[in-house]
Amino acid sequence: MKKIVQCVPNISEGRNQDVVNAVVDSIRGIADVKVLDWSSDTDHNRSVITFVGTPEGVEGAALALCSKAAQLIDMTVHSGEHPRMGATDVVPFIPIQGVTMEETIQLANRVGKRIGQELGIPVYLYENAATTPANQNLAAVRRGQYEGLPAKMAKANGKPDYGPTVFNAKSGATAVGARMPLIAFNVNLGTDNLDIANKIARNVRHASGGLKAVKAMGVNLEARGIVQVSMNMVNYKETPLYRVVELIRAEARRYGVSIIGSEIIGLVPLEAMVQSLDYYLGLEGFALNQVLETRLWSHEE
Amino acid sequence: MKKIVQCVPNISEGRNQDVVNAVVDSIRGIADVKVLDWSSDTDHNRSVITFVGTPEGVEGAALALCSKAAQLIDMTVHSGEHPRMGATDVVPFIPIQGVTMEETIQLANRVGKRIGQELGIPVYLYENAATTPANQNLAAVRRGQYEGLPAKMAKANGKPDYGPTVFNAKSGATAVGARMPLIAFNVNLGTDNLDIANKIARNVRHASGGLKAVKAMGVNLEARGIVQVSMNMVNYKETPLYRVVELIRAEARRYGVSIIGSEIIGLVPLEAMVQSLDYYLGLEGFALNQVLETRLWSHEE
Repeated sequence: MKKIVQCVPNISEGRNQDVVNAVVDSIRGIADVKVLDWSSDTDHNRSVITFVGTPEGVEGAALALCSKAAQLIDMTVHSGEHPRMGATDVVPFIPIQGVTMEETIQLANRVGKRIGQELGIPVYLYENAATTPANQNLAAVRRGQYEGLPAKMAKANGKPDYGPTVFNAKSGATAVGARMPLIAFNVNLGTDNLDIANKIARNVRHASGGLKAVKAMGVNLEARGIVQVSMNMVNYKETPLYRVVELIRAEARRYGVSIIGSEIIGLVPLEAMVQSLDYYLGLEGFALNQVLETRLWSHEE
Repeated sequence: MKKIVQCVPNISEGRNQDVVNAVVDSIRGIADVKVLDWSSDTDHNRSVITFVGTPEGVEGAALALCSKAAQLIDMTVHSGEHPRMGATDVVPFIPIQGVTMEETIQLANRVGKRIGQELGIPVYLYENAATTPANQNLAAVRRGQYEGLPAKMAKANGKPDYGPTVFNAKSGATAVGARMPLIAFNVNLGTDNLDIANKIARNVRHASGGLKAVKAMGVNLEARGIVQVSMNMVNYKETPLYRVVELIRAEARRYGVSIIGSEIIGLVPLEAMVQSLDYYLGLEGFALNQVLETRLWSHEE
């Protein structure tokens, strides 16, 4: 089974579409890499690009993208509402298939090192790739933003993980990280009582005693006259979709409320789908590569 | 979402690996086509090749394969245990993704016509592509085999659908068809009583009053001390996996028996997996292309 990693770099340009297009173009046509999506926000003056591919392909593409952004974006004249540190602001790597978090962290390190050495841009590792507990939190890494970088870099605990230890005025700094894919997952309840949705959300989410990799809140769907438990599943390997559905079902029972549906917003890794079906069918020994379509992007014949 | 069709041609050569390799090689490197698997049986003197791709890609590949087989296989000297009519014996097309059965039947007709016209080989359409009820059954189409072709073709109801109406001694005839993918699916029961597995099999299979697209029998798994309902799901769009699991669960209940597991043997289309998870999670409006990996083999960016 082919190894697949996703990368979702954010660049500090959301207004000049010529620049954004040039940055996206820099990773098109790279072997074993596919651009899935990109979008720009003019208020934030920021663009988000999503691409996937093999670890090797994604490594080269991430570097090409940072190089092009460094060439075309000048942080000395950048303004926008979103907190940012650099021309390429964040580069998260996300394991999708056949890749462990450990390998993804190694990939973040290889890319971080090359951005530092080859592009001369200071790099801070964050989330699962962080080298200090404080840097696991991206907001903490980015505190003070671009403008605060000279002061941050002068401090003993503000040194970058890779690259120059002096301020790069044109490019700023880049946060390179590794994290699990997020799944936006909502479960609809057969009631219009928001209080019930909020109580269930509290009971299933990690913050208040629930499942480890679940963030949840109650939401009112006024147009449909129902409420939902709206969730971010932050690590589907640890906490699969089926587990939160069955727990919500159990929690809802005491209110005489049923689950009437659910929705996955945006993309979901195949493995997360198979994992939950596995539970419901009681599948024994099922391998992802038994899904016929996985053969379509595999190297082996 | 890219259109994907599977093709599983059977050729009448399973002993001379040079010939088999040459036939498989004839479809390697064709754009938008991927060879998934091939295997030979020396007793049957027959090889089965599995490839997938876009309808256009698969059309060209099927023709290239039949052409190479016609060149290298001489039916006048062929012997083997498996019933067969021609050098390329059967060419079934199977819709995998984004393709209707109607489109698959049209593909079978295009390929059948070209095998007839370009290669001078008589073609009989079978299964969903059949032009007469009798020819829906491949065994009926193949009755009399290669040796019986001259007599068959002399009869009014034995004329091929495409190609010459005279016997082609070297290549015989080819059956070209369209069918749904088969899913080999077994459900394991928490008992060693084969009688119970057989009773449940009878109740869930189409032949004796059960679900339309299910063939089923009871099987003893002696080594594990359990029995299973062993099934062929012949049309997962009509009868999804979850439906037969839930029906088996209900039938088993009267014997105080539980489902203790299940297994999918071999390949399964993504759609069949998503369809069943859809049921269990109550997914609303989920589209196949929300599975991230589908983007990897799509043309669009």
